[in-house]
Amino acid sequence: MSLTIKLHSHPRHSLNHPAARLSRPPSLNPTKIRPGPIYHANALAPLVYSHRPRMSSDGAARGPIKSSLIDPDGGALVDLVVPEAEAGPKAVEAESLPKVRLTRIDLEWVHVISEGWASPLKGFMREREYLQSLHFNCLRMEDGSIVNMSLPIVLAIDDETKEAIGSSPNVAILGPDGNSVGILRSIEIYKHNKEERIARTWGTSAPGLPYVEEAITPSGNWLIGGDLEVLKPIKYNDGLDHYRLSPKQLRKEFDKRQADAVFAFQLRNPVHNGHALLMNDTRRRLLEMGYKNPILLLHPLGGFVKADDVPLDVRMEQHSKVLEDGVLDPETTIVSIFPSPMHYAGPTEVQWHAKARINAGANFYIVGRDPAGMGHPTEKRDLYDPDHGKKVLSMAPGLEKLNILPFRVAAYDTVAKKMAFFDSSRSQDFLFISGTKMRNYARSGENPPDGFMCPGGWKVLVQYYKSLQAEEAAQAPVLSA
Amino acid sequence: MSLTIKLHSHPRHSLNHPAARLSRPPSLNPTKIRPGPIYHANALAPLVYSHRPRMSSDGAARGPIKSSLIDPDGGALVDLVVPEAEAGPKAVEAESLPKVRLTRIDLEWVHVISEGWASPLKGFMREREYLQSLHFNCLRMEDGSIVNMSLPIVLAIDDETKEAIGSSPNVAILGPDGNSVGILRSIEIYKHNKEERIARTWGTSAPGLPYVEEAITPSGNWLIGGDLEVLKPIKYNDGLDHYRLSPKQLRKEFDKRQADAVFAFQLRNPVHNGHALLMNDTRRRLLEMGYKNPILLLHPLGGFVKADDVPLDVRMEQHSKVLEDGVLDPETTIVSIFPSPMHYAGPTEVQWHAKARINAGANFYIVGRDPAGMGHPTEKRDLYDPDHGKKVLSMAPGLEKLNILPFRVAAYDTVAKKMAFFDSSRSQDFLFISGTKMRNYARSGENPPDGFMCPGGWKVLVQYYKSLQAEEAAQAPVLSA
Repeated sequence: MSLTIKLHSHPRHSLNHPAARLSRPPSLNPTKIRPGPIYHANALAPLVYSHRPRMSSDGAARGPIKSSLIDPDGGALVDLVVPEAEAGPKAVEAESLPKVRLTRIDLEWVHVISEGWASPLKGFMREREYLQSLHFNCLRMEDGSIVNMSLPIVLAIDDETKEAIGSSPNVAILGPDGNSVGILRSIEIYKHNKEERIARTWGTSAPGLPYVEEAITPSGNWLIGGDLEVLKPIKYNDGLDHYRLSPKQLRKEFDKRQADAVFAFQLRNPVHNGHALLMNDTRRRLLEMGYKNPILLLHPLGGFVKADDVPLDVRMEQHSKVLEDGVLDPETTIVSIFPSPMHYAGPTEVQWHAKARINAGANFYIVGRDPAGMGHPTEKRDLYDPDHGKKVLSMAPGLEKLNILPFRVAAYDTVAKKMAFFDSSRSQDFLFISGTKMRNYARSGENPPDGFMCPGGWKVLVQYYKSLQAEEAAQAPVLSA
Repeated sequence: MSLTIKLHSHPRHSLNHPAARLSRPPSLNPTKIRPGPIYHANALAPLVYSHRPRMSSDGAARGPIKSSLIDPDGGALVDLVVPEAEAGPKAVEAESLPKVRLTRIDLEWVHVISEGWASPLKGFMREREYLQSLHFNCLRMEDGSIVNMSLPIVLAIDDETKEAIGSSPNVAILGPDGNSVGILRSIEIYKHNKEERIARTWGTSAPGLPYVEEAITPSGNWLIGGDLEVLKPIKYNDGLDHYRLSPKQLRKEFDKRQADAVFAFQLRNPVHNGHALLMNDTRRRLLEMGYKNPILLLHPLGGFVKADDVPLDVRMEQHSKVLEDGVLDPETTIVSIFPSPMHYAGPTEVQWHAKARINAGANFYIVGRDPAGMGHPTEKRDLYDPDHGKKVLSMAPGLEKLNILPFRVAAYDTVAKKMAFFDSSRSQDFLFISGTKMRNYARSGENPPDGFMCPGGWKVLVQYYKSLQAEEAAQAPVLSA
């Protein structure tokens, strides 16, 4: 997520605009979602940024707010972890089946699917789902309803594995360590056209896309879809599992806290005071709108990230300092890990990031500038138009029920000496600090301007980059006397 | 369209299967479209090949069948040709506006849009429509309904033209010959990211895609969208304009003929007896299903095609011979030209080919093997999986109301000495004649097996290839004595 934060041009998309007050609290609000504003004579599919808050049909009459603030896609949250009593027998069955060995990223997807982040998906995609995802970014359900599904969630196998599976209807899946993870049933094996998959997912076939280099190029020429059963919840034993709340656990937590609005913030970078300003400001505005207890889901991505991103453990430590230092209020914030790997697929991926948060029970989603964006791998430009992410998200089939909150531009106010929302009337006072710039500060041990990030959080980053340099030094060749 | 014709594996998709008889004539049939068959435990978006025929709400009670066999997308057929009385004043206004010069292919798109083939599109796409087309292959309407829109229908301009337009809200558009064609109003100019457009439309960025080389690579870095007004109907004065019936004219013709079913056959190749067999067989089956007067819309594509395709005038002559020779029945066939340029974009383009025929009033569409497919421009393989076209078409958002008829495999039966549906029990008797093979026959003057194509039609092809060789010879360098 970029460090510059942008105010979307269309007034209805900004919570500080009077129109936003149309968005009234559940107790005052009809269920129906209105179509968005009309832009043109031949208005096709207007941008719909902020829907009215959703409520359950019994509305104001109901008692304590349930996580039914927003329904999971498909109506029911998918949970593919088998009951403990069945785990034993199924483990025995798995022994007898052809085996598919997972990579680390495959296992992250098993984690994602098994906990229902991708509801209503019940396993790795079969060709029918794969094609809909690739061409339409959504799936049509039996009843004709549409759910968003922008990223192909697929499992690749090589020719030898396909050969070994033969005509078996089911296969066992093994983790990278060789341990049995679960079973894939009623499988379907189909061609893995990597070029087409990459082109339609990223909008480029240029070499050097991190996920492609890591997970697609080296993978097999076949995809295997089927219904997934997982023998036990996926754990990583990295000291961070307690942060990995499932959608079911998150919804329970939101109930426990009596949240009447949950706003999710997806990130894979350290939290600076510009982010904090935005999150606190969003809460303030939700309160102004009449919500009594808006809860922030601070939801760092925990799966695969590119080499120069800050590692998960460092980010989690940095985030906890941000809460310790009181920049974010622990009383109204839940910090949890989103187990998905990162595609860096811009407008296509931001839909996945939002859709997964619907399944986790968030009914508001803050969309960043250039979400899931990165530099073009071979050209000196952004891979995606920074505005396409929020535009595509606002029009994405199956996301109509989610309230989308666009970023406001925050930058360092050199007069007030703090991060503040950009004021164009005195633009000369504002300093934009990019992610690269921030990393360079930390690398060089130089301090960023006061008020850019809380001291505790900054210290974590400085220590991380110091340790990196120490490693590099240790690996450098030593001249013998 | 490939010459081999394939029977889709799923029985419900074959008209000769009893289940297809569920599809009863309007007089016996409810309006509701049923969801398709369920394939898997976690059946998401089942393949829906054949819906029940659609009928107007007054159903059996109504009098003569109207072209309301199927409604245009968006409910009303778009017609952007201004009334004659306004043409004069608007021509004068156009004089005063900044000018955008069209290429031949741009003009073909103006033709397509102005006659409503792309209904509900009322002009070249603005960014909002472009992004939805690129990412979702469909557009969401104001009322929340979905229409299919798989190809970006856009107009590119260069930096100089953008500069010249400045802040003018409207521009005049000029044909390739410099004559005023119409006006584009309430324009929006946005970036033309060619790489992303190509990758998401074709699923490859490999060089050598015919439409890309012809229309995208040389085009400008900006796209201009807006509401289109055309001063008078687009004509080509090539002796074929009488074949170019608009959707409005076609719907009128279907009414005149009292059609109670219209099945469209898209092609850009000569018609051989395998095609004819399929079309006549389709009519027979529609009659069996209880339709009284099924009409065939033989609908060759008339816009841009790649260099080695048979030119439109030759194809039209060949088609007319096929009717003269009685291979197809003129009484139940309408031959007309579809003015769209060809993308060769496989699964993405076949949706456009089907959607445009909905707007023309066809309620049945015959989908070929590997529709809009071609060889990969740089690799020795098909660019698309030959089955993906009909699979994607069967799941495409906004096409649910269209009855899709998959091809059956026809090949040359060396025993019966005619084109016949492939019989796997005596596969050795069948000879598959590819498009390349057919062209090679015609080029070499060698006759294909008797019964492959009617003599009159074949003669047209032979003459065409002879004339080509004569041209080549004339252009070859001559050694002087």
